[in-house]
Amino acid sequence: MVDIATRVYNHKWKIDPIVRSLIDTDFYKLLMCQSVFRNRPDTNVTFSLINRSKSIRLAELIDEGELREQLDHARSLSLTRGESTWLRGNTFYGKRQMFRSDFMEFLEGLRLPAYQLEKRDGQYELTFEGKWPEVMLWEIPALAILMELRSRAVLEKMGRFELEVLYARAMTRLWEKIEALRELPDLRIADFGTRRRHSFLWQDWAVQAMIEGLGERFTGTSNCLIAMRRDIEAIGTNAHELPMVYAALADTDQELRQAPYEVLADWHEEHDGNLRIILPDTYGTKGFLQHAPDWLAGWTGIRVDSGDPAEGAETAIRWWQERGEDPRQKLVIFSDGLDVENIVSLYDQFRGRVKVSFGWGTLLTNDFRGLVPGDGLAPFSLVCKAVAANGRPTVKLSDNPAKATGPADEIERYKRIFSVGQQAERDVLV
Amino acid sequence: MVDIATRVYNHKWKIDPIVRSLIDTDFYKLLMCQSVFRNRPDTNVTFSLINRSKSIRLAELIDEGELREQLDHARSLSLTRGESTWLRGNTFYGKRQMFRSDFMEFLEGLRLPAYQLEKRDGQYELTFEGKWPEVMLWEIPALAILMELRSRAVLEKMGRFELEVLYARAMTRLWEKIEALRELPDLRIADFGTRRRHSFLWQDWAVQAMIEGLGERFTGTSNCLIAMRRDIEAIGTNAHELPMVYAALADTDQELRQAPYEVLADWHEEHDGNLRIILPDTYGTKGFLQHAPDWLAGWTGIRVDSGDPAEGAETAIRWWQERGEDPRQKLVIFSDGLDVENIVSLYDQFRGRVKVSFGWGTLLTNDFRGLVPGDGLAPFSLVCKAVAANGRPTVKLSDNPAKATGPADEIERYKRIFSVGQQAERDVLV
Repeated sequence: MVDIATRVYNHKWKIDPIVRSLIDTDFYKLLMCQSVFRNRPDTNVTFSLINRSKSIRLAELIDEGELREQLDHARSLSLTRGESTWLRGNTFYGKRQMFRSDFMEFLEGLRLPAYQLEKRDGQYELTFEGKWPEVMLWEIPALAILMELRSRAVLEKMGRFELEVLYARAMTRLWEKIEALRELPDLRIADFGTRRRHSFLWQDWAVQAMIEGLGERFTGTSNCLIAMRRDIEAIGTNAHELPMVYAALADTDQELRQAPYEVLADWHEEHDGNLRIILPDTYGTKGFLQHAPDWLAGWTGIRVDSGDPAEGAETAIRWWQERGEDPRQKLVIFSDGLDVENIVSLYDQFRGRVKVSFGWGTLLTNDFRGLVPGDGLAPFSLVCKAVAANGRPTVKLSDNPAKATGPADEIERYKRIFSVGQQAERDVLV
Repeated sequence: MVDIATRVYNHKWKIDPIVRSLIDTDFYKLLMCQSVFRNRPDTNVTFSLINRSKSIRLAELIDEGELREQLDHARSLSLTRGESTWLRGNTFYGKRQMFRSDFMEFLEGLRLPAYQLEKRDGQYELTFEGKWPEVMLWEIPALAILMELRSRAVLEKMGRFELEVLYARAMTRLWEKIEALRELPDLRIADFGTRRRHSFLWQDWAVQAMIEGLGERFTGTSNCLIAMRRDIEAIGTNAHELPMVYAALADTDQELRQAPYEVLADWHEEHDGNLRIILPDTYGTKGFLQHAPDWLAGWTGIRVDSGDPAEGAETAIRWWQERGEDPRQKLVIFSDGLDVENIVSLYDQFRGRVKVSFGWGTLLTNDFRGLVPGDGLAPFSLVCKAVAANGRPTVKLSDNPAKATGPADEIERYKRIFSVGQQAERDVLV
């Protein structure tokens, strides 16, 4: 039977919106937004979307009109009553009323701010300028829109059966990954794949597959909308943008050196337990840990997001031991370039030595590698970062020089101040 | 949006019927039925369902009550007005009014006759007795019902995602086969897979995939219902049951020897062109061709349905040459145990030497091998054959002794009369 109402309803859409909710975003953006809203609300920032995969010429693949329609649609969204209720009433990380009333009022009134879009060298230059708590919320929808428009550009040339078989293959591949992960009895793994997902529907399918296939071992998703709809945990803590902006705002070398710790001092005041996760790599993990104040060693865990992940975890374990902490009580979250093979090997290497958790991103929600001729659906490295704060450029170094961002002279200055020596370069897949 | 009406409608079914139409059957059954209705309408026959795969204990897998419900439902079916219109008005093999008025009136009044069902040794003994034109129409629905009940028995233990991934894998596998067949520019291939299909919906999907993937190279389906709904050709000519019953009715050795030719003499009167296809293997291809009357060499082609297919085709080519016919004007239809590998090799071997066509059966519509633990969905060898006619047992020898059926002493008698010597035994997969 044809569901006439659904078909007519679908026809009414002027566009088929990619982002249909303000909370179709990562949970940590909301946590960070609340922190920024409290501590640095008036900072002016610029976020910029950067395609690190230059060979994928997005401006040639994606129609500018369609991109504008999608971005404009995202700007038309506001928090629904149900979304607001969920954010206000839900328990996150075991805590009720995670979001303060003043922040919720801000969020309820929020619309995404204006964007600037230009084409250059076959790429889109998409930037957002304004108050930090507003601009920062563009990151995930902007990435998801670009990623999915690229998928659609490739998919629209395919026939019905090619599409059916494409998704059959992708489903088979993902399910086989989940079956492999089932072999790990103590696995803790979450979906971190919103930003580079193939599409919203595909991420939603992937999450459902994880629920069905892994049960309790699947700890939740970073995506608030999916967490709400599927009644699972929303997962995430904090990201590089906090130390990057705090660092850019520093007036002296000394202030710059302290900026990453200041971020976590603010965080320390607001959160406890499993939300106290150190992201140490913004300006090099080794230096960060070496100069860290003692109270940081009391935090719950560390997220390893660049460089050699095993090395990062070993560094963390040694650091805890040096500071008199028992690593077996600590949590290491791996979240960089994960797929089944390295999940299994990291699991094996660290099981029993430390609590281990995985934030599985792109290769959970966008592993379409090799599924179409010319590999036109392979994931690629699109990021949306704070590039300036109050008129000053931001810098990120990370533990992989291939991921460094910022002006060259500022990168050199940061490397000097944070005593970052030689770093091993690693390929950035996504 | 939930389609409430569809859900409520589906809930109203007492059972979920497997066979929902009298023309959910193979086209050649209707052609043969018309021939029998004209030439031997009063013959009493017994058809019996035989599971050649003894290790699959159908009576333990399939609930007897469910089986009876399905068989009873099939007995409640009659030709709908639209089906009758299609059979009366459609062009089959380029010919209008393929089905005579008296036959259509018979078919419009037909209900499937009674069945006898017993359990023995973990198997069902399912037999049908009565007038040949009625009983013979049980073959395909009986097989399809048993096959699909077995699929359902295995599927009902699976979760939603396991099911989704199961079909994703099966779709991927079939599509890869179709992609491989696309490489053959002059391919002519039809779906012959009704009788051993995984399910009706799966056969329907397979046909649609063949339409989309192979275009003109896909010549049609043996299934009348799918041919009607998908607006494609219904394909098929005649089968072993005609010579088997004619042979059983023979009163003398001399009549027995002539029986297979008598079948084709009756057919010759009724059909021409692409419907004049010899099925020579019932009592051994070599002897059949050697003693065949000259007018048979004028027929359009030969169907190779047992034994080594390349050898069967070479035998046919030599025979045509001996009879002064040009093999390049003749058609060889391969229809036994086909899958991509032997389709490709037979295509390569005979292309240009003879017209080649393929009737692809079980491994088109039921290749679920290796897709569930214990291989519980692998296709198996279920047949439904005429076992007696007017109280006498039928015999089939074919070109593979593993496919011989009938009482041992009768098999020996037939072998003697048809001068069947040593035969090479081949595994029967399906």
